[in-house]
Parts: sequence; structure tokens; C-alpha cells
Amino acid sequence: MEGNCIVAQSGGPTAVINASACGVIQEAMRQSGIDGVYAAHNGILGVLNEKIFDLRKEDPQAIERLRVTPASALGSCRYKVRKEEDYRRIIDVFKRYNIRFFFYIGGNDSMDTADRVNKLAAADGYDMRVMGVPKTIDNDLACTDHCPGYGSNAKYLAAMTMGAGRDTEALYTADTVNVIETMGRNAGWLAAATALARRDDEDPPHMILLPEVPFDEQKFKDRVHYYLSKFSRAVIVVSEGTKNPDGTFIAEQKGEFAKDSFGHTQLGGAAGFIKDLVEREVKVKARFAIPSTIQRNGIYFASKTDSQEPYMAGQKAVQLAVDGTSGKMVTLERISEEPYECETGLADLIDVANGEKFLPVEWVSEDGFFVTDEFIRYARPLIMGEVEPVIEDGLPVFMRFEKHFVAAP
Amino acid sequence: MEGNCIVAQSGGPTAVINASACGVIQEAMRQSGIDGVYAAHNGILGVLNEKIFDLRKEDPQAIERLRVTPASALGSCRYKVRKEEDYRRIIDVFKRYNIRFFFYIGGNDSMDTADRVNKLAAADGYDMRVMGVPKTIDNDLACTDHCPGYGSNAKYLAAMTMGAGRDTEALYTADTVNVIETMGRNAGWLAAATALARRDDEDPPHMILLPEVPFDEQKFKDRVHYYLSKFSRAVIVVSEGTKNPDGTFIAEQKGEFAKDSFGHTQLGGAAGFIKDLVEREVKVKARFAIPSTIQRNGIYFASKTDSQEPYMAGQKAVQLAVDGTSGKMVTLERISEEPYECETGLADLIDVANGEKFLPVEWVSEDGFFVTDEFIRYARPLIMGEVEPVIEDGLPVFMRFEKHFVAAP
Repeated sequence: MEGNCIVAQSGGPTAVINASACGVIQEAMRQSGIDGVYAAHNGILGVLNEKIFDLRKEDPQAIERLRVTPASALGSCRYKVRKEEDYRRIIDVFKRYNIRFFFYIGGNDSMDTADRVNKLAAADGYDMRVMGVPKTIDNDLACTDHCPGYGSNAKYLAAMTMGAGRDTEALYTADTVNVIETMGRNAGWLAAATALARRDDEDPPHMILLPEVPFDEQKFKDRVHYYLSKFSRAVIVVSEGTKNPDGTFIAEQKGEFAKDSFGHTQLGGAAGFIKDLVEREVKVKARFAIPSTIQRNGIYFASKTDSQEPYMAGQKAVQLAVDGTSGKMVTLERISEEPYECETGLADLIDVANGEKFLPVEWVSEDGFFVTDEFIRYARPLIMGEVEPVIEDGLPVFMRFEKHFVAAP
Repeated sequence: MEGNCIVAQSGGPTAVINASACGVIQEAMRQSGIDGVYAAHNGILGVLNEKIFDLRKEDPQAIERLRVTPASALGSCRYKVRKEEDYRRIIDVFKRYNIRFFFYIGGNDSMDTADRVNKLAAADGYDMRVMGVPKTIDNDLACTDHCPGYGSNAKYLAAMTMGAGRDTEALYTADTVNVIETMGRNAGWLAAATALARRDDEDPPHMILLPEVPFDEQKFKDRVHYYLSKFSRAVIVVSEGTKNPDGTFIAEQKGEFAKDSFGHTQLGGAAGFIKDLVEREVKVKARFAIPSTIQRNGIYFASKTDSQEPYMAGQKAVQLAVDGTSGKMVTLERISEEPYECETGLADLIDVANGEKFLPVEWVSEDGFFVTDEFIRYARPLIMGEVEPVIEDGLPVFMRFEKHFVAAP
């Protein structure tokens, strides 16, 4: 089968989602069976709107620099394809551009989209291969040991926690408690990863609030008092998805943050909630930090392991597609613990689409405010090594595509 | 004059305040005229409470690692010495410990304290040398070209802005505006420094809100609309100290953030205020990030220039004190622009104590929402080069003093 391929990125960016794209693009260019190498601008929206650009017209050095450029250089979207006519249109566009390979880099929503495209093409008798490439900082995809993007975010958050923790250690007489909010709406993997920062007992974080553990105000206050008496300070990491026993987000309790102007339930208020609670109930001064989108784009302190694996996954997706595989997502399989070794595997797109992986309860420490050594053993290899960013004039250099848009032949 | 020396750190930590301490400590240990090399734990509080530890008993490797450890490893404080009896007690403690050299690393409040100690000792006929070593991320100290700590914070914020900006560029169809809040309660130096991130017109930040420029809501909204029409997105950096035309902080308008539990006017709400304003008035989705104390402790992306200069300043303070200087702060003087060269100078402690340096109006761009090339030429050299952190198991390694406390002989 000969024809063109298209690659797209979807959902929230990560520091290394472009490493996946780099693996796909460079491998596709090596394959004699692949003619045009295209990108959809802003994920599936780029297919629907025919905003498709030609990657063979891009500077190869720019493509290589995808490895050191955070966020989705192809453009991303949060568009959930639901309507039958949208799916029909996708197949129609693929036919007109003779797209025979579709590589979708994203999370479970994207895998759902990819799965439907794959099935519709087959039902339509249109011969094409659809492959998913995993991406999410949340580390909550099913069928894979871990997710590209998680390790870099985890490493950066742990380093941030170390820095902010030293600030509190220095100034505990004035700023006694420091609260750091991490992403992770449903799963606590990111918040948990800050535990990697703790080498000594008195190192931060002292407490971690996880979405998997219902928030118990009294237990929380007791634990803060415990750390104040032990170290005269406390550094608390709170996942934006931390919930009350009734399942509502703790952040929802704050009137001002409850809904945004569009009426969506807004998170991002968890840190403020905890800070206020500490000041009101524990009667010590607290500060808070919300690294928000900064945490997922820190290529200047990203994990080398987490940069190499998505490249490998992207590359593998292309090789397998060319060899005839379709309807699958490339997974990461940990084949050895020490030394850590990781290979790719395969999962059905539909299984990833329908799954969600939470932090296992047995990896939460007994008091509910920390994680076990087993979690640390799981997470540590994922943050190893550092990506070496290109630096000019004291700051990283990122690539940007020229985007030579193409029209259907 | 022979005797002991004491070094202390005060105020908000920086990524490189320990480089100053390292310069002081290593130089003091080289000087034959200095016997005991002591540290006051938590700034002047450590003197008042006689929490003094012996630096000669610390591991020299730990002392060397001060250069790669953020925040104040000696401990810091926000205690403003006002009472006459406190000053008398300081002199008394110095006499009892035979402290003949006092090195105070801090901002203008610390220089005020140092100045009073210097004058009281002289009036008392107690022969001692008091030297100030500058430190502040805010870059607002008088009498010095720039302040140790500023360059590293500036570099890190600029890199954060680049990352968060790429996030918005990738996801502008969903998250259209991104607001990043910087420290800087009175002066806009830090917010301004994020301009270093902009290499191309479409690079972030698109707008910078400075404390020096009264916030004009209509002009602000117009400018956001301009960027939305031009780039379909906007990245806005807001200084926590941004003020309304009547001089109140914009963050003060938010009821919930107005006062903390102690009744202090709380900042840290500027980003939330701007996000809400954008969503309500411009009708696009906005996000916000508050790096808070994280921004001033990012040793893993700190400026080498900003690490070498405080070391040099600390070293020079000791050399000058031994040679007879007292009542001065070591300043940084830019003696050449290209290539950038910096030497130390001297200022009277009292002049630093009484001064405050704002971003010059002529360095603000005409529309009030950016900075001029002249500012960029000023700031660029200060972020050049990278500190190489010690990394183990994927994360930086910080030192911590063993703190062998001493009692007065």
C-alpha cells in the first residue's frame, strides 16, 4: 500500500509530545512506502477544516528540534468528535488527500476518535492504517505501564517542590506553610510524583493530597499540626482534583472559582482553598503556588527517559503501520526494573479509549497523605536524565513550523 | 584587628543568595585575621536569640554546594529590628562572641539594620566592621546597577513564559489567553524581564502589566482584542504589584484575596483578577499561573552570571572589611556593555537603606504594555549562562548545614 500519511496532536500539551511527533515524522520520511508526510493543524480540527501542511517542506533541523520544543508544535485541540457527519467528513478528507496512514498523538479521547476513524474506514472499504501514540501528563491511560509526558512533568514538579520547600525552610518564621497545586483532575499520579523530592524526612513535600483519597479536614489539620511541631513548617502538595468525601472537588467550594464565564466547573482553586483553610484553622501564615501550564512545558528540566520513549513510540507506530498494523495504540512496557528497561507493546485503541488508570490505593501511605516506596520505585526511572535544550542568549530556542498548507490534489 | 566573623541572610530567598554566602564564608576562611567563622540562624533573629553556628565545623563540600542550593541555607527572617533594646542586644551578643566582622546579605531593610549596628558599635567604642551584601529578586536596590538574585529569577520567569506561551499557541482554540503572575510588589523589573522571551513578534509575552504603569481597563481590553485578532491568542504577564490609577493594587479588588487571616493586604490575586476580567469582558477562555516562591528558587535554570556576581560580592565584602572598610554595601557596577563586564563598587549602607529603584518610565514602551530595547540590552547580560546543578537520581541535590550551635565563650 502506498500513499500519504498524516500526523496530528490532541489535548493538553506536554514537554515531550513533540518528541513523539519527531519520531513519527522522521520515521515516515525514511519509509519508501510513504509518499506525502502531512500534519493536521490543531489535531482532528485540522482534518475537518482541511488545515493540512506539508512536513517535507519543513527544515529538517526544525524537525529535529521538535525534541527540545515543548507543547504541541503541530497545534492541538480539545474538540471531541461526536457527530457521524464529522467522521464521514474525516474519511472523505483522507480519501481526497490519499491519506493511507493516520497517526494520532493524544489521550483516551483521541484514541476513541482514532478507533472510530479506523472502523469507519474499514466499513467503507477504504484501505488505511490508523495508529495511536500515547500522550498525557496525567499518566492515566489504560494498557500502558506509563504515559509519555508524565515523567517530565513529574520531574519538573518534584524540582519545583524542592525549591519552594527550601524557601519555606528558610523563612518558616514568617511563611510557615507552602501549598503547591499540581494538575491531575482525576488521577493523583502527578501530585504523587512530588514525593520523589523527599530524600530526608524533613524534605518537602510533607503532605500530598490526592484525588484518590477523600479529603478529611480533621485528619488534614492534625497532620499539619504534626509537621509544624516536628519541623516548624509544612509543604503541602495538592492535586487540583482533590475531592471531598461526597465526590465534589474541594476547589468547588470556593464561590469565586466555582464556574468560569462559560459555566464550566473550574478547578485551579485547590491551593487557595488549602491555604485559606490552614490560615483560618491552623492559624499560621501560608502561601501557595499554581504552576498551571508551566509545569507541562518545562523542557529546560525535562526527563531524558521521558523524551526518548515517546520518540521510540512514534517511530514504532510508523513501522507497525507500514507493516500492516491498524487500530492499535503503541504502549510502553517495562520489561526490567533494575536496570530499568522499556519496550513498546500494543493495545487496541478501544481498550485505551474506554480505560482510565488511577493511582493504586496500595501505593498510598497509611495516613493517606503520602505514597509508598513501591510508588517511588515505579516513578523514579521515568524522571531519569535531562533533556539538553538548545540555549541562545540565555534562553531555550524552540522551533516553529513554517506550515506550508496544501490543497487536495 | 583579630576576631570572629558572622554572616547572616535576610528577607525573601533567591536562587543565588547562597552564592553570596559561599563567597563570604570561603573568603573568611582564607583570611588569617579572621578566627571563628559563624552564621546567625535566620538572619538577625539568630543574633538576638543567640542561635549561632560554627561554619568551620561544616563539611567544605557542603559549603561549596551552596552555589547550587537555592534559598537561604543559613535561614532567613522578615524581622525588622526597630527597638533600641534589640540593637543594644545585638551589640552585646557581638561583644560576647568577639564578633568583629558582620556580613549581612539582604535588601534595603537589612542594610538599614546593618547601618544602625555599625553606628551603634562605633558610638559604643566597639571596634567592628559591618558590610552589606546585596540580594533581592526585585532588583530595586539603590546605588547598584542590578541586584544578585534578579538575573536568575528573570531567566526562569522568561523560560516559564516561553513554555506557557507555547501551551497557549498549541491550544488557542480552547485556552485563548494565558496570564502569568510575577513577583514584584513595587517595581516591575521581574515582570519586565519576561520580555526577554520574545524573539519573534508572535512570541510571548504579548503584554506586560507593570506596577509603574497605572492599570487602564479600557486600554487593556483594546490591547487584548488587538492580539486576539492578530495571533488568535494572548499571553499576559502581570506583576503582583500592578496598581489602579488610584494607587490601590488591582489584586485588592478581589474580596476573597483582599486580606489574609492576619488582616494583611494579600497580593497574589492579580492573575486571577486579570483572568476573570478577560473572561467577563473579552469573552474568551483564560487560564492563569502563579509561580510564587517557585520562581525564586529555580537553581536548575539559574543564570551563571547571576551566580558568579554574588559570590564575587560576598568575597569582596570580606576582603574590604579585613582591609578596614565598614558601613558599606558592595555594589555591582557595569563597566562595559559589550562585552558585558561587571565589577564591584561601594555604597553607604544608609543610602541603600533609604533608596528604591523603579523601572525607568523611559524603558516602558509607548503603549504601556511592554518594554523598550534599551531595557532588553540592560537585562540580557544578567541571564546569560546556566548554573550546573548537581543531579542525582534525576533531581538536584541541595546541601543543608549540620548547624553546630555554639555558646558564648
